[in-house]
Amino acid sequence: MKDVIRLFRDGVRRQTAYPVETGSYDVKLDANENPYAFPESLKEEFGQCLSSVPLNRYPEAGSGTLKKLFAADFGVTEDRILIGNGSDELIFILLAAVDQTHSGGVLIPSPTFAMYHIGALNTGHRLIDVPLDNAFKLDEGRLLETVRRERPGIVFFSYPNNPTGNCFDEKIMRAVIEESDGLVVVDEAYGVFSGRTFLPDVDRYENLVILRTLSKIGFAALRVGFLIGQPAVLHELNKVRLPYNLNALSQVAAAFYVTHKETFDRQIEMIVREREWLSRELSSISALSVYPTDANFVLFGCDRNENDVYNYLLTRGVLVKHFSSPASLAGKFRVTVGTKEENIRFLKALREALQQ
Amino acid sequence: MKDVIRLFRDGVRRQTAYPVETGSYDVKLDANENPYAFPESLKEEFGQCLSSVPLNRYPEAGSGTLKKLFAADFGVTEDRILIGNGSDELIFILLAAVDQTHSGGVLIPSPTFAMYHIGALNTGHRLIDVPLDNAFKLDEGRLLETVRRERPGIVFFSYPNNPTGNCFDEKIMRAVIEESDGLVVVDEAYGVFSGRTFLPDVDRYENLVILRTLSKIGFAALRVGFLIGQPAVLHELNKVRLPYNLNALSQVAAAFYVTHKETFDRQIEMIVREREWLSRELSSISALSVYPTDANFVLFGCDRNENDVYNYLLTRGVLVKHFSSPASLAGKFRVTVGTKEENIRFLKALREALQQ
Repeated sequence: MKDVIRLFRDGVRRQTAYPVETGSYDVKLDANENPYAFPESLKEEFGQCLSSVPLNRYPEAGSGTLKKLFAADFGVTEDRILIGNGSDELIFILLAAVDQTHSGGVLIPSPTFAMYHIGALNTGHRLIDVPLDNAFKLDEGRLLETVRRERPGIVFFSYPNNPTGNCFDEKIMRAVIEESDGLVVVDEAYGVFSGRTFLPDVDRYENLVILRTLSKIGFAALRVGFLIGQPAVLHELNKVRLPYNLNALSQVAAAFYVTHKETFDRQIEMIVREREWLSRELSSISALSVYPTDANFVLFGCDRNENDVYNYLLTRGVLVKHFSSPASLAGKFRVTVGTKEENIRFLKALREALQQ
Repeated sequence: MKDVIRLFRDGVRRQTAYPVETGSYDVKLDANENPYAFPESLKEEFGQCLSSVPLNRYPEAGSGTLKKLFAADFGVTEDRILIGNGSDELIFILLAAVDQTHSGGVLIPSPTFAMYHIGALNTGHRLIDVPLDNAFKLDEGRLLETVRRERPGIVFFSYPNNPTGNCFDEKIMRAVIEESDGLVVVDEAYGVFSGRTFLPDVDRYENLVILRTLSKIGFAALRVGFLIGQPAVLHELNKVRLPYNLNALSQVAAAFYVTHKETFDRQIEMIVREREWLSRELSSISALSVYPTDANFVLFGCDRNENDVYNYLLTRGVLVKHFSSPASLAGKFRVTVGTKEENIRFLKALREALQQ
């Protein structure tokens, strides 16, 4: 026997695979997707775009056409954008490019999006976990002290934070950016729902990197993410990006989105309105503790047995996200803002569950 | 000034970006694509498949449906397949998963596909370059001696080898697999054109990993690659794979391909017949030295100034691949097998170029 498994890094071997819900449910409110389907009125034009793609040819390397379109949309120059196969890939590129043997580690305020942690383990980085406070806010003193002591190669901020929903204090984030001599990644996957962004700061901070994605705004199927930062940083990251990292169908589809943006912007506005309504409805239920949200989901705890509640929702065809770890999230639920009809079905099932 | 560039690994900083041809040419014979367009007769059915994809939802994580279909096609069980965003991503996953600080390095018989070298630099591995002999064959003695001395964590074989076109000696490859206690990757990107494969050996060698792709057989646009190996190895690699690494449109399109395979198999047969014809025509030109090929391209050298020849071809709208490095390839050309009409245009332009 050849023990080939010994070759893989410890951080890989010790992990379990990222859990993904594979069941099929009527009301799918677990993955922070946009609940609105692609508009019927645009389907024919969109189909023609897709069918124009020569399948036998490689995609445009580096997604140059798409870069131009999104540079204009983000209000930055083309040399400040890198396009990825979802922001997951961009997180992985960042972690792979930074030399883990000469870095102070990867600092992650927790709880947050699992992929920072998983990616850091997969690329052999040391993890520096700095817990959020009880209200899921940044602990300024502890955070800055840790940055000064550990000199992390990368700090990740999810803004608004997934799965807690809140935007961290901008002033504390700026203090971290200024204090750190490593990269500070501000992941604005849910930025369209908060209306807040660090995009205007890209020129000010050479160590600031911003992530955006199409996954939450109606195009999760495509896997298109954006990294915005200073040209010198992008020059290095671009060498780690695989030359043909974004397939041609997703390139064409993402170009279609950005040239028809007003239609999809209206969906975002509807989601934000529904979020406000859903948050209020949840807050009116006395068994629940509801956290404030700037995203397209709501985090809440509940004073009943959480497995019973979760399973009751499933029997009613409603899938939400249910956390068992870390401790600060255990027993809490994250529900994605759905359509009005979905939100009503979810609330009805939840009220029933709490009456069991 | 914060010197954030210092964070990136040496192997990244020292590299230049992968060069990709971006011009537009009538006869594009530089990238080893299938020259035949998607069949008109299947376009409507295919369009319906694509339009059935819910764009607002995440793709199937792990491409389970596709895995079932291709497992059957490759004649292996589902736990022996991993699907990637092109085989480029699978190469990157392999290199990221293997701990470079405890590995003897990455052995690459050269010249070969550039991505092994680039990927190894991007992930901080030591490169062990073992040159092929003058006929681009494996040097058995030197190769085995290097494996014994260096104990590489990964050995890459491109089979048939890109860009030389030949299949290496299967017996020597087996000796390396048996001698090595690291992973041995047999990249069969061009395997459909050689008719040779190590697929039946997957159960025999626990350190054997095979790569396949749809890029050379008509679907370069999609970025779909396959890694076939033993379940214990795939269990670890699957943790490094991003959960949603393959977009939903490519998943559906690849499923369409494999359920309509006979149509595309006929294209492969045509390419193999054209290759034989093109090789004979090139061999009949006395100014050229033509290398034997098992792939969908032909490597040849020429006794004229290679830049003049290359540029003359460009003026005639014909793009081929032209190597300036490494030394063993410098001045040589790689031409992809095109359609009959494209091959005739290429040969005419080449003969003219040689008469200048």
